[in-house]
Amino acid sequence: MKRVGIIGTGIMGTDHARLLTSSVSGARVAGVHDLDPVRAAEVALASGGARVFGNPYELIVDDDIDAVLVASSDDTHEEYVLACINAGKPVLCEKPLAPTVEACGRILDAEDKSGTRLVSVGFMRRFDPGYTQMKRMLQLGEIGAPLILHCVHRNPAAVPGLPGAAVITNSAVHELDITRWLLDEEIIEVSVHAPRATSHGGGTPDPQILLLRTASGAVADVEVFVNARYGYDVRAELVGELGTVTLDGPPPTVLRRSGMDGRALPADWRPRFAEAYRLELQDWVDGTGGAATAWDGFAATFVAQACVRALETGTAQPVALPPMPELYR
Amino acid sequence: MKRVGIIGTGIMGTDHARLLTSSVSGARVAGVHDLDPVRAAEVALASGGARVFGNPYELIVDDDIDAVLVASSDDTHEEYVLACINAGKPVLCEKPLAPTVEACGRILDAEDKSGTRLVSVGFMRRFDPGYTQMKRMLQLGEIGAPLILHCVHRNPAAVPGLPGAAVITNSAVHELDITRWLLDEEIIEVSVHAPRATSHGGGTPDPQILLLRTASGAVADVEVFVNARYGYDVRAELVGELGTVTLDGPPPTVLRRSGMDGRALPADWRPRFAEAYRLELQDWVDGTGGAATAWDGFAATFVAQACVRALETGTAQPVALPPMPELYR
Amino acid sequence: MKRVGIIGTGIMGTDHARLLTSSVSGARVAGVHDLDPVRAAEVALASGGARVFGNPYELIVDDDIDAVLVASSDDTHEEYVLACINAGKPVLCEKPLAPTVEACGRILDAEDKSGTRLVSVGFMRRFDPGYTQMKRMLQLGEIGAPLILHCVHRNPAAVPGLPGAAVITNSAVHELDITRWLLDEEIIEVSVHAPRATSHGGGTPDPQILLLRTASGAVADVEVFVNARYGYDVRAELVGELGTVTLDGPPPTVLRRSGMDGRALPADWRPRFAEAYRLELQDWVDGTGGAATAWDGFAATFVAQACVRALETGTAQPVALPPMPELYR
Amino acid sequence: MKRVGIIGTGIMGTDHARLLTSSVSGARVAGVHDLDPVRAAEVALASGGARVFGNPYELIVDDDIDAVLVASSDDTHEEYVLACINAGKPVLCEKPLAPTVEACGRILDAEDKSGTRLVSVGFMRRFDPGYTQMKRMLQLGEIGAPLILHCVHRNPAAVPGLPGAAVITNSAVHELDITRWLLDEEIIEVSVHAPRATSHGGGTPDPQILLLRTASGAVADVEVFVNARYGYDVRAELVGELGTVTLDGPPPTVLRRSGMDGRALPADWRPRFAEAYRLELQDWVDGTGGAATAWDGFAATFVAQACVRALETGTAQPVALPPMPELYR
Repeated sequence: MKRVGIIGTGIMGTDHARLLTSSVSGARVAGVHDLDPVRAAEVALASGGARVFGNPYELIVDDDIDAVLVASSDDTHEEYVLACINAGKPVLCEKPLAPTVEACGRILDAEDKSGTRLVSVGFMRRFDPGYTQMKRMLQLGEIGAPLILHCVHRNPAAVPGLPGAAVITNSAVHELDITRWLLDEEIIEVSVHAPRATSHGGGTPDPQILLLRTASGAVADVEVFVNARYGYDVRAELVGELGTVTLDGPPPTVLRRSGMDGRALPADWRPRFAEAYRLELQDWVDGTGGAATAWDGFAATFVAQACVRALETGTAQPVALPPMPELYR
Repeated sequence: MKRVGIIGTGIMGTDHARLLTSSVSGARVAGVHDLDPVRAAEVALASGGARVFGNPYELIVDDDIDAVLVASSDDTHEEYVLACINAGKPVLCEKPLAPTVEACGRILDAEDKSGTRLVSVGFMRRFDPGYTQMKRMLQLGEIGAPLILHCVHRNPAAVPGLPGAAVITNSAVHELDITRWLLDEEIIEVSVHAPRATSHGGGTPDPQILLLRTASGAVADVEVFVNARYGYDVRAELVGELGTVTLDGPPPTVLRRSGMDGRALPADWRPRFAEAYRLELQDWVDGTGGAATAWDGFAATFVAQACVRALETGTAQPVALPPMPELYR
Repeated sequence: MKRVGIIGTGIMGTDHARLLTSSVSGARVAGVHDLDPVRAAEVALASGGARVFGNPYELIVDDDIDAVLVASSDDTHEEYVLACINAGKPVLCEKPLAPTVEACGRILDAEDKSGTRLVSVGFMRRFDPGYTQMKRMLQLGEIGAPLILHCVHRNPAAVPGLPGAAVITNSAVHELDITRWLLDEEIIEVSVHAPRATSHGGGTPDPQILLLRTASGAVADVEVFVNARYGYDVRAELVGELGTVTLDGPPPTVLRRSGMDGRALPADWRPRFAEAYRLELQDWVDGTGGAATAWDGFAATFVAQACVRALETGTAQPVALPPMPELYR
Repeated sequence: MKRVGIIGTGIMGTDHARLLTSSVSGARVAGVHDLDPVRAAEVALASGGARVFGNPYELIVDDDIDAVLVASSDDTHEEYVLACINAGKPVLCEKPLAPTVEACGRILDAEDKSGTRLVSVGFMRRFDPGYTQMKRMLQLGEIGAPLILHCVHRNPAAVPGLPGAAVITNSAVHELDITRWLLDEEIIEVSVHAPRATSHGGGTPDPQILLLRTASGAVADVEVFVNARYGYDVRAELVGELGTVTLDGPPPTVLRRSGMDGRALPADWRPRFAEAYRLELQDWVDGTGGAATAWDGFAATFVAQACVRALETGTAQPVALPPMPELYR
């Protein structure tokens, strides 16, 4: 029975606590910390009586905590993840691993020096049954060698005036990770092609089209649209030399009502990826190693920064990742 | 941590052991019995070191067993479930509760006398996300009052020459249960309309069309076809006064290959209902009471027997269930 | 250039005039009659200057009319079709051929005596690309020998209090014809199973489930629901020994809007079967003989009357068609 | 009755002759020319006895020919279309209007000087029910202002070693036209992003991704893949500020067979766009002016040449169309 400590009980931390308590085998929430002690106490109670820690570092080093889940604000990820590495404890960090390439690099160095892979990054789509089946079909040769990956990532609404960089680092970063994971290779060049912005975004350069070229010469195009209004919608088609695989929406029913025959779209990502989150946590608790590593977290932020430069300069940007440390081979 | 004993380690028992060990929160397999002690030992080992019991009744009464899962052959269900009731232990019995109305009735009486609901029956479809969303949409009024339920239940192949009665009691029984559960009322009349039999069934009267009339006057039609050859396929459409809800297949991807654009069908029921089994077990471990009760198990067998008579006589059969005991209100 | 005379310029007659004028090769509307001479004149004008006839019998025998399209009220079909047979002119009669078995029989006798097949009946679904592809796949052996045909036929709304018999003779009659045509054999027994009626039909026994057994032992089940509210919806699945074929809705686009991903449903049958009507008329003008014959029209009315008796008596009804005259072999 | 002369009886010319004879109202094939007189004679015979012309210019000026359909090889389009303009006769020219911008420009000048719009170009997709419904939904405001158009255009196989330019001018040119037509504005910048080439193309740079930016700032991305192997597949999604519209494949049935549930894909473009061709010809015969004009033909070739330069240079290319002549306003 793995005893998990959770740092940060916002939307994601609370949801992870619920899943660990009710739907994951072999784990329980043993400790909780949040800047808001009332909120932490509520989650601790709902988790069947976990201990509330006033200090996150005390939680990390406590003998009754076997592993740590970091779901606090992005800018705090680095210090907590580093503390976990120092304490020699497995840590699952919500994406992004850290907001800057430099911060990600410090985590990578620390873990590499420690000699043990302790860090997982919460790119949950790697556990989504649609994406995993897509990868399996690719591996089985069903569609031949991959050439193009078409991605669509739409949210109904974002904060008005959200900077264009945040569209990439918050949203498109999922596709940056999934492209690397699905094709099992690095992205070497990126460009961003923004149409006229929607009038519903308060000035945000939205939607955007990202073009990602991989080491083998495959190309991914990603539409990211954070003010798409009509619903949350994530789609992908992987085109190979012999055929294609397309994600199909998970709503398990079709409704015919009021002149329409169709499927309801979720309002946000949580119902869409509920199963992915559960499987991600189960994998982490089991230690089976399916999650994104610190290297993956570093690479995602590295590529995202190149995309931000491409957006800002209007020109294609090479992506020259440093060599991958031995630890991640 | 609920300690579960499993009686019977065939396909279903082994699968339940795996789920309890790897994917369900708050439970572990603590004891295993099977007629084949080698098989029992294998499952016990894979479950992380459960104890193997040579005698199922010893497993049932053992102090280290909190709850029992019965997945042995159908004709043994009655005696094991009765022993669990006597021992005051929760029991999840694979469907059917028992093969005859009389045997089901004896279980019902025993449980009613015990004054506590201990028995759950493994009609896993009640936990399938498609069926539960269908029921939720009905309850939300999305389609108005229900009028018709169309069901299709196809297996690729059955034992050649399987008796017509077994097509009903093994396969169609799932639809008998789901009709009662979805519409939340009893079936009061049944008839069976068999087309010419397929040439691939070795003489089995297959396919069959069952018509079920409920107390409120809704009608369910059920095509059950156990030698459909092309794949495992379960579908349903619930027609209300304002609209309809249709199950949509769960394969999360579409494959375009060799001149075809479509979804792969599973070879049998296990991938189709994998999520339903997991949720059923989690519900049982949590004691949240979503599963079919002994009354539901009794009613399913009762209606199935009426369908068998309808098949054999070619005439509609009334279904006059005895009054439901107070315990199940 | 075939010169067509149209009798009756209601919805269907006007629509046929438009198609003959604008979308069919080798024909033009040369004469028009309607009880309402203003309406007839409007259609004649829109058809490029056809002649208006005050008397339908004069239209039928006029030397400048090569063929006649009967789209007047059902009870007038018999006399006009008989007049066409007497005049030796091809006639396309909207369904039903005539409202009673007796009237259909008189037409059949007259045509049989004339020794020439002059009568076509407007069961346009025989030309719908979906149904024709379904039949082609059956004929190609794609699904093996047919066993079951599932049909759904839903209209959004009917006249309140429409008699139950009219639900069959107006609506379900299309499925009676399509079952005979698709399976290429006669229906030999029918029964009707009405659920509780919808509260939106003003007392009409609606929906209804018809069960039709064919000579070879296949079974068709037909849901007909004329107050389905949500849209016009016609679907069918043909189940064979090796696979199935399902009609797929013809709207050529999917709309994602307001939380829904789906296809718009037509409000009535005309957009749904627009292509079928065009192909039906082209076939008739070409004389290629794809349409339903007088025998088919007779049989559809014959089976419909048996269904009405089944509805009224609550018992299965045998369908003993007289021998098919030599002319229709 | 419009008397049509056809120049060129290859695949397209023969198909047009068949449609004009059998499925279009108000026209007949009156003259046929082909380099191969035997082939011309066959088509003339199948068209009900058209006259065979040994000289295409004699066909064009003949008094018994009202309008001309040019379906000869691309490099002959210019001279025949110019001859039609000189003769003052309507001409429907298969795409491309001409292979070079200069040749297209000469046609444009000649027509402009003639002062009458006589030339139509056979971009048949403008008549496809899917594209027309997409445009209608856009015009009705169903999806708000357009931002992105995603296009996919796949053929199963092309001539091995086909030059990259031909992938654009033969195939992607359809999307160049449809983008202009759908968004009703000009393309002002293009770039081409080729992934690693498929190993099944004999060296053709295939697939390609084209990015097209329009005057208002919308962006179209076009995957063109002429050796996609698995089937002919054309898809498009138009993304607006409020929702999206997606083309849905026209096969009217779903087949469940051999473990798969799906729709058959056509082998080439003819079944896919059969209805578009028929409607295009009917529109042309009716003179309703829905087809692409000489200006559209010029613009398509102009943009295609910019895409070829973008492919060859690897850089984005501005597209500076000359002013549109008054005649096309």
